[in-house]
Amino acid sequence: MTGHGPRLTPLAASLPADVPFVGPEVQERDLGRAFRARIGANESAFGPSPGAIAAHGAAAAEMWKYPEATNHALRHALAEHMGAAPDQVIVGGGIDGLLGTLVRLTVTQGDAVVTSDGAYPTFNYHVTGFGGDLHKVPFRDDREDLPALMARAAETDAKLVYLSNPDNPMGSWYDGATIEAALDAIPDGTLLVLDEAYVEFAPAGTAPRIDPEDPRVIRMRTFSKAYGMAGARVGYATGARGLIRAFDKVRDHFGMARPSQEAALAALADQGWLTEVIARTDAAKARIAAIAQDAGLAPLPSATNFVAIDCGGDGRFARAVLQSLIARGVFVRMPFRPPQDRCIRIGAGLPDELDVLAAELPAALADARESSTA
Amino acid sequence: MTGHGPRLTPLAASLPADVPFVGPEVQERDLGRAFRARIGANESAFGPSPGAIAAHGAAAAEMWKYPEATNHALRHALAEHMGAAPDQVIVGGGIDGLLGTLVRLTVTQGDAVVTSDGAYPTFNYHVTGFGGDLHKVPFRDDREDLPALMARAAETDAKLVYLSNPDNPMGSWYDGATIEAALDAIPDGTLLVLDEAYVEFAPAGTAPRIDPEDPRVIRMRTFSKAYGMAGARVGYATGARGLIRAFDKVRDHFGMARPSQEAALAALADQGWLTEVIARTDAAKARIAAIAQDAGLAPLPSATNFVAIDCGGDGRFARAVLQSLIARGVFVRMPFRPPQDRCIRIGAGLPDELDVLAAELPAALADARESSTA
Repeated sequence: MTGHGPRLTPLAASLPADVPFVGPEVQERDLGRAFRARIGANESAFGPSPGAIAAHGAAAAEMWKYPEATNHALRHALAEHMGAAPDQVIVGGGIDGLLGTLVRLTVTQGDAVVTSDGAYPTFNYHVTGFGGDLHKVPFRDDREDLPALMARAAETDAKLVYLSNPDNPMGSWYDGATIEAALDAIPDGTLLVLDEAYVEFAPAGTAPRIDPEDPRVIRMRTFSKAYGMAGARVGYATGARGLIRAFDKVRDHFGMARPSQEAALAALADQGWLTEVIARTDAAKARIAAIAQDAGLAPLPSATNFVAIDCGGDGRFARAVLQSLIARGVFVRMPFRPPQDRCIRIGAGLPDELDVLAAELPAALADARESSTA
Repeated sequence: MTGHGPRLTPLAASLPADVPFVGPEVQERDLGRAFRARIGANESAFGPSPGAIAAHGAAAAEMWKYPEATNHALRHALAEHMGAAPDQVIVGGGIDGLLGTLVRLTVTQGDAVVTSDGAYPTFNYHVTGFGGDLHKVPFRDDREDLPALMARAAETDAKLVYLSNPDNPMGSWYDGATIEAALDAIPDGTLLVLDEAYVEFAPAGTAPRIDPEDPRVIRMRTFSKAYGMAGARVGYATGARGLIRAFDKVRDHFGMARPSQEAALAALADQGWLTEVIARTDAAKARIAAIAQDAGLAPLPSATNFVAIDCGGDGRFARAVLQSLIARGVFVRMPFRPPQDRCIRIGAGLPDELDVLAAELPAALADARESSTA
C-alpha cells in the first residue's frame, strides 16, 4: 500500500502547496514569544460592535443548529444597505471565499485573468488554483493602473480583471467617478472584480455609483476590516442577478457559521460603532505617519486602515527593517514587488501598540542601516 | 449592458442552481410559523459542551483577528485523539467543506466516482460540481452495499468511492472488521471516502482500525453531530501525508471562524459531555422506536442519532406522512430513493419535541391513509 499515492487531477498535481500568507501565530511559534504589537494583517484592533459580540454570544446557544443556508436575514439587510435587491447579494466566507467561488465559476484552464503585480495574493492563489493564466500589470505611481488593467484585459480577452479600491498593500485609491468612467472601457465579456474591503475607511466619493444589475462588475465587501470581524469570516458581493444566482450552483450552502451570521447582522445595524472605529483608525494612521516622519521616513497617503511607509531604500533595505521589527516583537508586513517593496505596511493599532512601534522603529532602521553597510 | 451575461465556464454553465437541502428556516418562512419539533436535520438538540460554549464566548473578544490558518492547536489535539500525526490531519468547514476540497483535488471532468443511490447528496453535489461522472449503486437490505461499491469502483476505474458508516439516511452500519476486509478489494487508484459523521453514536467496533498513512482511505469526522456544533462548521479528516498535504494547495486557509476553532478544541477535551449526549441520544432513539411501534410502524435499527421508520407503504405514502407531520409543525426528512423512501427519518430530539411527535404521528398517519384512499 505504501506505493499507492493520491491520484490527484493533473491541475491539482501541478499546484504548489503554498500558503498565500503566513499568519502571525505561526511566526510567534517560530519566535517562541507573542508579538507586542499585532499591526501587520490589516485587522481592526478596535474590534467589533458590542452588539455584534452580544449577538454572537446569544447565537452560541443555537450552535447545534445548522446555519441558515440562504443567509436570509443578513442578505436582506445587506441589500438594503447597498441599495440592491436581495437576489443581487451573495454572502460568503469573507472576500477570500467569494473570490474563490467567483473564480471557480468563471475561470477554467487557460482562461486569462488580469490583476496588478503585487496586488492581493489570495486572488492569484484562486486563479492559479483553477488553472487560469494570470496577466500582471505593474503599479503606476503606487496605484493599481486602471487604464493599463483595462487595456491588458482587452488584449488577453480576460474573463476577470481585479481592482482593489482602496488598494492593498499601498493604501492608494481612485475616486468613484474615475472607476465609473473606466468601466466604459471594459472589454465585452470581462468582469471587473471590484474589491472594496477597505472602502469604509476611504474619503466620500471613493465608492463608484454602480447599478447592482450592471453585468460588467461584481463588487465585494467584508466584515473583516472596519467591522472588526476578520475571525468570523463574513463577506458579501453585489452583482447582476444571473451572476449572483450562479454562486448557488457550487457554493457550500451551509458553510457560514451561525454565530458569524448573527454577529454580522448586528454589526451592520450598529453604524455608530463603525463611525467610531473609522475615527480611531484615522487617529492611529495620523500617529503612524508622525512616527514615520520622526524617524525620517515618508508615509504614503492612505484610504485604508494601514499606512505604507517608504523606508527610503530598496526592497532589501525595507525587508531588513521589517525583519528587525519582527524580531523586536512588532508584527508588520510589506509589499512583494518593486518598487512598492521599498515600503513596509503598518496597521492602525491600539495606542499601546503604536507606542511599541514608536520605540522600535528607529532601532529597526539602525539595524537595517548597519546590515546594509556591513 | 443588459445583454452582457456572466461568462461562466462551460462546466459552471451546465450546472443547475440546486441546493442540496432546503433548511428548516426556509420551510418555516414558507409555513409562516416556527416548527414545534426540529428533528429533521440530524442535529444534536442536546447542544455542545458547556466548555465549548465558554471557549466560543471567550474567543469573541478576539473576533477581530484572522483565524489561525494552520489550525495548529486543534489539529494537534485531533491527531492525538485519532492516533495520527498532526500532518495526517486536516481541518475544514465540516465534512461538507472537506468533501468539496477532496473532490476538487481528485476529480476532473469525466472522472468516475462511485456512491450509493440515495446516500449523502452533498457529496454528489460536489462531484457534479467538478464534472465527475457519478455511478450509483443501490442499497442492499437498507445498507450501503460495500461489496457492490467496490466492484463498481473496479469496473469504472473510480477515483473515489464513498461510504458513510454508520449510514445516513437509514442508520445502518457495518462493523469495522468488515470494512477492513473490504479494503483489500479496493481497486488500485481508488480512494475510499469513509464518512464517519455518526460514528460516535455507533456500537464499539464500528470504526475500522486503519493506519492513518494507509493511502487507500481518507476518513472524515465532524463536530456537527455528537459534539452538537453543526452551526460552527468544523470537520476533520485523517489520511496519508501526501493526500493531506494536497489540501493546502487549494483550501481557503483562513476560512474557519476563530471562535469555531476554539469551541471545537474545548469540545474535544470534554469527552464526558460526549458520553452524556450519547446516553441521551440512545434514550431518545428508544422513545422514537416506541412511538413508532405504538403507531403500528416498524423502526429500523440505528447506529446514528436518528431512527428511520418504515411507514409500511411506498414512497408516496411515506411522503404523505412526512408532509402531514411538517404541516403539523414537526420538521422531519426522508430518504430519496425506493425502497428506502418507504421510511421517514426522525432525529433524537428533546423530550418535549418527542411529545409533539407522539401526539402528531398517529394523526399524520391517518391523514396519509385518507389521502391514499381518496
